[in-house]
Amino acid sequence: MSGGALLLLVLDLVGTFAFALNGALTAVRAADLDIVGVVTLGMITALGGGIIRDVLLGSLPPTTFSDWRYLAVAAGGGLIAFFLARRLEALTTPIEVLDALGLSLFAVTGATVGLATGLGAVQAVILGTITAVGGGTLRDVLVRRVPTVLSSGLYAVPALLGAAAATVTARLGVYGVVATFGSATVCFVVRMLGVRYELNAPRPPGRRNS
Amino acid sequence: MSGGALLLLVLDLVGTFAFALNGALTAVRAADLDIVGVVTLGMITALGGGIIRDVLLGSLPPTTFSDWRYLAVAAGGGLIAFFLARRLEALTTPIEVLDALGLSLFAVTGATVGLATGLGAVQAVILGTITAVGGGTLRDVLVRRVPTVLSSGLYAVPALLGAAAATVTARLGVYGVVATFGSATVCFVVRMLGVRYELNAPRPPGRRNS
Amino acid sequence: MSGGALLLLVLDLVGTFAFALNGALTAVRAADLDIVGVVTLGMITALGGGIIRDVLLGSLPPTTFSDWRYLAVAAGGGLIAFFLARRLEALTTPIEVLDALGLSLFAVTGATVGLATGLGAVQAVILGTITAVGGGTLRDVLVRRVPTVLSSGLYAVPALLGAAAATVTARLGVYGVVATFGSATVCFVVRMLGVRYELNAPRPPGRRNS
Repeated sequence: MSGGALLLLVLDLVGTFAFALNGALTAVRAADLDIVGVVTLGMITALGGGIIRDVLLGSLPPTTFSDWRYLAVAAGGGLIAFFLARRLEALTTPIEVLDALGLSLFAVTGATVGLATGLGAVQAVILGTITAVGGGTLRDVLVRRVPTVLSSGLYAVPALLGAAAATVTARLGVYGVVATFGSATVCFVVRMLGVRYELNAPRPPGRRNS
Repeated sequence: MSGGALLLLVLDLVGTFAFALNGALTAVRAADLDIVGVVTLGMITALGGGIIRDVLLGSLPPTTFSDWRYLAVAAGGGLIAFFLARRLEALTTPIEVLDALGLSLFAVTGATVGLATGLGAVQAVILGTITAVGGGTLRDVLVRRVPTVLSSGLYAVPALLGAAAATVTARLGVYGVVATFGSATVCFVVRMLGVRYELNAPRPPGRRNS
Repeated sequence: MSGGALLLLVLDLVGTFAFALNGALTAVRAADLDIVGVVTLGMITALGGGIIRDVLLGSLPPTTFSDWRYLAVAAGGGLIAFFLARRLEALTTPIEVLDALGLSLFAVTGATVGLATGLGAVQAVILGTITAVGGGTLRDVLVRRVPTVLSSGLYAVPALLGAAAATVTARLGVYGVVATFGSATVCFVVRMLGVRYELNAPRPPGRRNS
């Protein structure tokens, strides 16, 4: 494995861990769950987007389900959230940074995998976005929340921009670690600006004050 | 492309547009969403049934996801709903007619695709019904409603009848535009009668007044 | 078909029937549904786990969708629940026993199918558990409950133990009816102990009284 590929794998696992941790903590706050529920929802948050991606591509069984490293890291994140939920609630900022890192990498790898299997550019951008936000959406449905990605904050928009950047660079013939990191940075910066300044996507006209 | 196939494609796109418009409007009413949420839910309503159908058949990536025309028409319907939500609320009847058209065509094409890939008759009827009602069900789950298809009105029943008509005509050796339109008409008429006379499927005995 | 395979098929159909009956009854209690909703939710409870399993394995169309016997038995269970909902509510214990039987068999067959298609041991255990609890989880999402499997009672844990027992015996080279029944018994006994003594999986520390 080359240094670049190894770096990407490590970052992908870091993103998986962050998604599992953050997903499980969100689940603990949103519903009255036992250990099975907390760990399951952490794993679904971390692995769900990649599973939806692979189902849509027909590349089954899904990578994140077959590869034990993803399963182990996701289960670890969920277990840590279960045992340390109270203490971790103070650490909002570092967890949000890690979560944005996961979002960025998932959006970029999702779009890249889509292009590699022959999807068109628009489809690859959508697939990257689904990869990034799909796991959190599944979790929100299971704990009976309207998925935050549909209602507030900038979450899908940075993922869409990161996936678009990855698609454009690939179409320009730029591949490799630099293209990946550049595209992921687009998503990461927009996401962190959204968190910092509490930005929101537009709401339907005339409904803002309803 | 023959005239019949072109006509079917046009009608399928009209149905997709109607589902996206109606789905996004329903989503605007049911939850507090931003533009990402409204367009996403419009697209899920329009494309979700076809995606579930293709996942069940293993014909991946799903047609409605690979074909940019479906994506563009669905996104257009969602965007129009977002910007014109207030004005469109007056147009209930034309939107319901278009929606019934979409329901009819999706039920018939779902069953026809199922038969073409070797499913049995009962399975093809179920698949047609899932194609027709699957997208709206996904939307309702995401905006946290009990899917209306499960609880009130005649929505699954006309789809089931249309899919059954398509299956029977195919088994009798009648194919082509006439069989498609005849079967779709069965669904369309039952659906519009259901809307007009506010018909409901039976409820569990002894629970009507609970 | 050998006597062992026939016995397994019969038991699998009994489990499917029990899941459909129990799933439809739960749905009747949880939401205001019509006959379409009750039968659909019974069928989803009974067949959903196997469908998720086959989607993840890429073995499509799913067996429980292609094989009319599963469809017929599941629809029968849903219809009986619809017409006899009031009377069946008294029969909690026999229905719970049948449901535990279904849980046990689905966990074991899910894990066994996973191993047969080349999954690793951990993945096979997870797949068996998903097969056993997936249908009920889909139903709970559709009737807008936080899935009970995530929040209370011992439901996923016995399925996990049964799937693990099936995986260990298969890895030890023990196959056939005896291994299947031994593993299913592990799940069944733990499940029934959980029901009898109202056992729960641990909750997050410091949240027990919240």
